[in-house]
Amino acid sequence: MTELDTTGAWLSREDLDNARERLPILYVSAVPVRVDDRGVVTHFGLLLRAGSEGEIGLEVVGGRVFYHERIRDALSRHIETDLGAMALPRIPLSPQPFTIAEFFPTPGVTPFHDPRQHAVALAYVVAVTGDCRPQKDALDLSWVTPSEAAGIAGRGEMTGGHGVLVRQALAHLGYPI
Amino acid sequence: MTELDTTGAWLSREDLDNARERLPILYVSAVPVRVDDRGVVTHFGLLLRAGSEGEIGLEVVGGRVFYHERIRDALSRHIETDLGAMALPRIPLSPQPFTIAEFFPTPGVTPFHDPRQHAVALAYVVAVTGDCRPQKDALDLSWVTPSEAAGIAGRGEMTGGHGVLVRQALAHLGYPI
Amino acid sequence: MTELDTTGAWLSREDLDNARERLPILYVSAVPVRVDDRGVVTHFGLLLRAGSEGEIGLEVVGGRVFYHERIRDALSRHIETDLGAMALPRIPLSPQPFTIAEFFPTPGVTPFHDPRQHAVALAYVVAVTGDCRPQKDALDLSWVTPSEAAGIAGRGEMTGGHGVLVRQALAHLGYPI
Amino acid sequence: MTELDTTGAWLSREDLDNARERLPILYVSAVPVRVDDRGVVTHFGLLLRAGSEGEIGLEVVGGRVFYHERIRDALSRHIETDLGAMALPRIPLSPQPFTIAEFFPTPGVTPFHDPRQHAVALAYVVAVTGDCRPQKDALDLSWVTPSEAAGIAGRGEMTGGHGVLVRQALAHLGYPI
Repeated sequence: MTELDTTGAWLSREDLDNARERLPILYVSAVPVRVDDRGVVTHFGLLLRAGSEGEIGLEVVGGRVFYHERIRDALSRHIETDLGAMALPRIPLSPQPFTIAEFFPTPGVTPFHDPRQHAVALAYVVAVTGDCRPQKDALDLSWVTPSEAAGIAGRGEMTGGHGVLVRQALAHLGYPI
Repeated sequence: MTELDTTGAWLSREDLDNARERLPILYVSAVPVRVDDRGVVTHFGLLLRAGSEGEIGLEVVGGRVFYHERIRDALSRHIETDLGAMALPRIPLSPQPFTIAEFFPTPGVTPFHDPRQHAVALAYVVAVTGDCRPQKDALDLSWVTPSEAAGIAGRGEMTGGHGVLVRQALAHLGYPI
Repeated sequence: MTELDTTGAWLSREDLDNARERLPILYVSAVPVRVDDRGVVTHFGLLLRAGSEGEIGLEVVGGRVFYHERIRDALSRHIETDLGAMALPRIPLSPQPFTIAEFFPTPGVTPFHDPRQHAVALAYVVAVTGDCRPQKDALDLSWVTPSEAAGIAGRGEMTGGHGVLVRQALAHLGYPI
Repeated sequence: MTELDTTGAWLSREDLDNARERLPILYVSAVPVRVDDRGVVTHFGLLLRAGSEGEIGLEVVGGRVFYHERIRDALSRHIETDLGAMALPRIPLSPQPFTIAEFFPTPGVTPFHDPRQHAVALAYVVAVTGDCRPQKDALDLSWVTPSEAAGIAGRGEMTGGHGVLVRQALAHLGYPI
């Protein structure tokens, strides 16, 4: 997950660090997919991302919700930040997420882990129909089939529990996992 | 809800009538909507439909699931039958419906009523992006705003409980109802 | 999945067989679980069942919805039939299922397979709080932890796609799978 | 919604006020219900609450999620705080909420309004089976039928959009609204 507002109209880096030690931080997660005309998911998009300590891992799209920002606008913003302005996402019509991922700074409390903070992510599957190019700290973007995604996610190749999130998305979409 | 297969590769009219007295019949319901780029629903599509006894009422899209037909294909077929081949629906990615509407032949068992049968409808909101023209027994198609839809649905102008279904869809989409 | 009504106030065996060749049959599936005071699922209940051809496999609870029967009453009836009258289930408050499982007579169309019919199951997780004893064609009932359930379901030890359903239930409940 | 931690192991009043001007605050909302043996909701619990400026209004249960607190534990804590230690709630098994309610400090952005902050509430329906007594700033607790709840919620007698949340809960439970 990325930091996007280090210069911060909303929050200084210091204030954000301070809040992170005291409050759960609201996130959105978007599992980007390609779909065919029948609504069948054909590919999952996995981001190769460099973390703040230089470690590299596969992740889904996502990040913080800003003050006074709608959930749907946070989804749009993070998809644009990670996949570029031409990704043409179909933002979900309903606010109901398929799951809530609770990222804890302490490993093992939940399947999700974020050493920097307690982040609670509203998770959605988002179809993208345009041209996707990894941006900023997203080094690469791979499109893999659902069964490849299940394999990659299941072998622990995704950091911080993002593999669990991908497999929960697969289950929600009706795929065997 | 319509009958589409009276000549029936699958089922004769007589056999269907027979089954309807003995089994719950599986239906899909699709609440057709127009959306903007942010995923905000701007309009609901309401069908003016003539029933089998000549009565007229506002309804959403839907009908029977055929033998050996996928749910997503039944949704596509009924949208094409009711809205035309150029409706360009975005079939939902997940099989999870927003509700199950149980239409009973006896009024008052549930909010949903179908004098012909016990029908159980898996209900979805479906965005359509193309040109929609009412087909067959759909006499007219009206696009109304969410607040107009809430009003029409709440004043009992929709038959068989379709107004309840529209208001449940509005609630699922986050609208006040 | 079991047949419960061979003597049939509703449908003769012949009529049911006839309908099964022509119509999708509406089912409910219930994944029985034990929970603690915090709502954490501690155990999954898996039924050892003998199929109509004498084969044996692990399954979840479920079966047909009868004509003029509510979904919630079908859930109660099948839990009583499979787990006994003292199971004390907490029937879900909302009709929204966590998934729809489409069992096809042809293998490979979906992850779910039923050689006898095209059955469409509304799937729920149901906490049971009482004394459960396998009934009728349920030979045995095993209570296993979520991680044991994930393992059993993932190794293909459950028939007809019931393992997929258990893993989709685990995902819906927030477990890693 | 209440403040529970003014003395704060987690956060001083000043720090919380500071965060509230800069970050969305994560909330849980619980619509408390009574259910019968079939899982049918018979009553909704509405709290009469005094707000921080002395105004009085009907609300549902809810409040902040603490740092390093699980969603299910935040639900338990707020139910105990509002309804007492003997309420015996059945905490939902799945983390999937029925909706997300976005409370904005600016009226009109969404149906939900909280003058103090931008709060994002994960909303659940929670059955309570024990003895409920309003606690702390909850002045009274009324148990009303679903149709009474629909009426009260629809007439604008609930503050801050809590009426919308109750009606969305009714819709999710399958009730006409």
